Amino acid sequence: MSSDFIDLNADLGESFGAYTIGDDPAMLDIVSSANVACGFHGGDPEVMNATFRLAREKGVAVGAHPGFPDLWGFGRRVMPYSPAEIERIVAYQVGAAMAVASYAGHRISYVKTHGALGNLTERDPTVADAVLKGVAGVDPSLPVMAIARSHLESLGRERGVTVFSEIFADRAYTEDGHLVSRKEAGAVLHDADDAAARVVRMVRAGAIETRSGALLPTRIDTICVHGDNPTSVAVARHVRDALTQAGITLRALT
Amino acid sequence: MSSDFIDLNADLGESFGAYTIGDDPAMLDIVSSANVACGFHGGDPEVMNATFRLAREKGVAVGAHPGFPDLWGFGRRVMPYSPAEIERIVAYQVGAAMAVASYAGHRISYVKTHGALGNLTERDPTVADAVLKGVAGVDPSLPVMAIARSHLESLGRERGVTVFSEIFADRAYTEDGHLVSRKEAGAVLHDADDAAARVVRMVRAGAIETRSGALLPTRIDTICVHGDNPTSVAVARHVRDALTQAGITLRALT
Amino acid sequence: MSSDFIDLNADLGESFGAYTIGDDPAMLDIVSSANVACGFHGGDPEVMNATFRLAREKGVAVGAHPGFPDLWGFGRRVMPYSPAEIERIVAYQVGAAMAVASYAGHRISYVKTHGALGNLTERDPTVADAVLKGVAGVDPSLPVMAIARSHLESLGRERGVTVFSEIFADRAYTEDGHLVSRKEAGAVLHDADDAAARVVRMVRAGAIETRSGALLPTRIDTICVHGDNPTSVAVARHVRDALTQAGITLRALT
Amino acid sequence: MSSDFIDLNADLGESFGAYTIGDDPAMLDIVSSANVACGFHGGDPEVMNATFRLAREKGVAVGAHPGFPDLWGFGRRVMPYSPAEIERIVAYQVGAAMAVASYAGHRISYVKTHGALGNLTERDPTVADAVLKGVAGVDPSLPVMAIARSHLESLGRERGVTVFSEIFADRAYTEDGHLVSRKEAGAVLHDADDAAARVVRMVRAGAIETRSGALLPTRIDTICVHGDNPTSVAVARHVRDALTQAGITLRALT
Repeated sequence: MSSDFIDLNADLGESFGAYTIGDDPAMLDIVSSANVACGFHGGDPEVMNATFRLAREKGVAVGAHPGFPDLWGFGRRVMPYSPAEIERIVAYQVGAAMAVASYAGHRISYVKTHGALGNLTERDPTVADAVLKGVAGVDPSLPVMAIARSHLESLGRERGVTVFSEIFADRAYTEDGHLVSRKEAGAVLHDADDAAARVVRMVRAGAIETRSGALLPTRIDTICVHGDNPTSVAVARHVRDALTQAGITLRALT
Repeated sequence: MSSDFIDLNADLGESFGAYTIGDDPAMLDIVSSANVACGFHGGDPEVMNATFRLAREKGVAVGAHPGFPDLWGFGRRVMPYSPAEIERIVAYQVGAAMAVASYAGHRISYVKTHGALGNLTERDPTVADAVLKGVAGVDPSLPVMAIARSHLESLGRERGVTVFSEIFADRAYTEDGHLVSRKEAGAVLHDADDAAARVVRMVRAGAIETRSGALLPTRIDTICVHGDNPTSVAVARHVRDALTQAGITLRALT
Repeated sequence: MSSDFIDLNADLGESFGAYTIGDDPAMLDIVSSANVACGFHGGDPEVMNATFRLAREKGVAVGAHPGFPDLWGFGRRVMPYSPAEIERIVAYQVGAAMAVASYAGHRISYVKTHGALGNLTERDPTVADAVLKGVAGVDPSLPVMAIARSHLESLGRERGVTVFSEIFADRAYTEDGHLVSRKEAGAVLHDADDAAARVVRMVRAGAIETRSGALLPTRIDTICVHGDNPTSVAVARHVRDALTQAGITLRALT
Repeated sequence: MSSDFIDLNADLGESFGAYTIGDDPAMLDIVSSANVACGFHGGDPEVMNATFRLAREKGVAVGAHPGFPDLWGFGRRVMPYSPAEIERIVAYQVGAAMAVASYAGHRISYVKTHGALGNLTERDPTVADAVLKGVAGVDPSLPVMAIARSHLESLGRERGVTVFSEIFADRAYTEDGHLVSRKEAGAVLHDADDAAARVVRMVRAGAIETRSGALLPTRIDTICVHGDNPTSVAVARHVRDALTQAGITLRALT
């Protein structure tokens, strides 16, 4: 099921006080959706407000991007929180993001979990369940962005939650459609041309392209790009341009 | 303007992880409204959830109780945040509280600022303005609980915000109706009988009773009691009983 | 190898700002050594200073008590830090404690790891190694307090570190001399008389007494008691009195 | 009193987890002394360790650089801590830095306060006194780096503390030898040539050069340069080269 429209998303608003990560103004000219950190693994109320305002001005949709409460580890460590604790951590951050977005004249369109928490939602059904319960406790109609073929995606759809399925522009896929572990060689695509061309193929085919080149039919609503260093910003721009040139329009999900 | 009904409120949900402050279960049998800390000066997502659930079970209304981001100082230090920063700090915490309350099956009825931030709203109109803007940015219909005769109260009413006017059961009042500074002798009433009798007189008279015994007609919607030590819990219970015996019914504000 | 002298230690200085845990003044009249939290899982520079000063006045020795950087979890969660990170976390906290102790007119006599970090040193040799490297990096002559029969104890002795071997007054022991898991029934001794009598038997015998009553000859330098609630303070006092009545003198380790 | 030797210092080790500030490897090739953040306003045990190791390898001296506990504000906010609290905050951080430096095979040569805390030591004698007491409590022989003509400098010398007097390469001076407020135009010198030439004149003359070009004889032990952005690194390199070309040798203080 190919598509004429696709969403392009990136993790933004991850700066903290005097500490800057990423080139958010540049990325907000590239993506159609911004996943905004909520102050636990990155971000702070000032950064959140500034990011929401700039996104609104540029017509970019915003999602709440909750993570583990681990500023030191930037949310990349698997922290020892129980599923019940994760429910509350997610609800808290989603609410904070909804409030600051509203204050900034914007609104949260979806929730995407960050870093180690996001990775757990792919492979651990109890964490996927916890995230869904945390979000539903705040607003059952709020969509969730999930890694394609993850537990979060299937469990969310089972429950009638609106799920946006996400693939990654710069990550290799195994033959069963999962992300190749970063510990393996070739896990990350570094060539912008290759990455962009593969994204166009995947969106056109409505399929994940594995390392071997096989195509696994998969629902694809959004493509994740990165913006934390100059190279990744260039890749993201390249992906956007390639999609546009292929006649695929960038559009936020609703 | 005397009243047959009055609200009784206390700061609750101020524990943090293994650190417990106050006897929340006891206080939730006494008050009609609980001001619940939002994780910046006290409280955490687990404590917030537990407090909201218990309040709901006991039929106690809940308010968001934002403070300065100062766990070490328990929100009692005047932190150097600009009015614009205070707007965002308040919006963030109010949203987090709304979300966790919703998750817990309850809902936030009002916002009351904590500690040093609350004190600033009494005497500093720029802080009062910032708090109102932070709350309005989240939900313009959300009521604000304000110290009687404070800048927050007058500014809020001017703007059409629903303001609940609050007096303190255990604090002495100056001749112009403000709180006697804690640095002065007699600022805090320690005798439970005296405090309870004075509260009944004030509610009946619709007036603040000053140190000299003068009565200043003042709108009184709610009475603040404390619950952070066994003595204060006893005073709170005494105040509740005295009001009930005087035919004044405790009722949360709406 | 029975002893005429024994050390009695407890975790103290675990309060944080307005949050109080334990009755430190009472405990400092009972123990001969205080393990003082260093600000990562509990404690803060004010609490550390006050605890060191009071300990000095009462003639109680003090140890640095580093834990995981997890105030919310009070150091009881196994946090995902690598051995190399643990080395630095330990060094940092030990140095902070040495400095504040010096400022307070006291001096750090030993290091004892807290909570989840302490438990890992019993069973995980890589963590035991990391703790030893962290301490040695600061001061190779600084003694380490270790759970009797732990990896930390054996590894420390192998390396020529002064190790103080510790048993617990209120914990049951397996037949091979390890702590019975708290998940099992009977893991914690709640009867003060039983606990005190068992401590006297163990110190006299120079042996750990297992659940079955077997005695495993074990070096015992110090006994850990708790002070975080009124019951545990009573148990601690009971243990102290029983030891004294048995002719065993309490004395800090040197 | 001109000099053939001078120290060049910069604030380094201010990164935190995934958040990087400054180009520390480049700066450690320029300066002779590095003021290393201690984890309260910036830095963490990993960053401290890495910075101390790299400084040792490059032969750069290191100082403890304590600041207010305000990671969000990067230590630039004047936080409401009492002088007594500042004593403990300073002692804690100095000890942590000493320990991690030792662990990394280096040693702390001096203490320099950061940001808002540093600015207070210039103009507020009670804060200068608190900093001196905090340092002396840890090690009375530890030198203090102080802004030339500050209260910290004069009070430290009065007490027999070794004080290193510091001027700033890129800051304008008032006619009485104090830093021009950043709120005034011309407070910061942006031209690298001008800054470097002025530094050489000041070191040769043993005098501060004011905005009007007047020379105020002043003890100058060290020159502060910055490294938090590419421009400031270029200025720092320029200052170093100009000094070297003028026959003034860079040398850490002892």
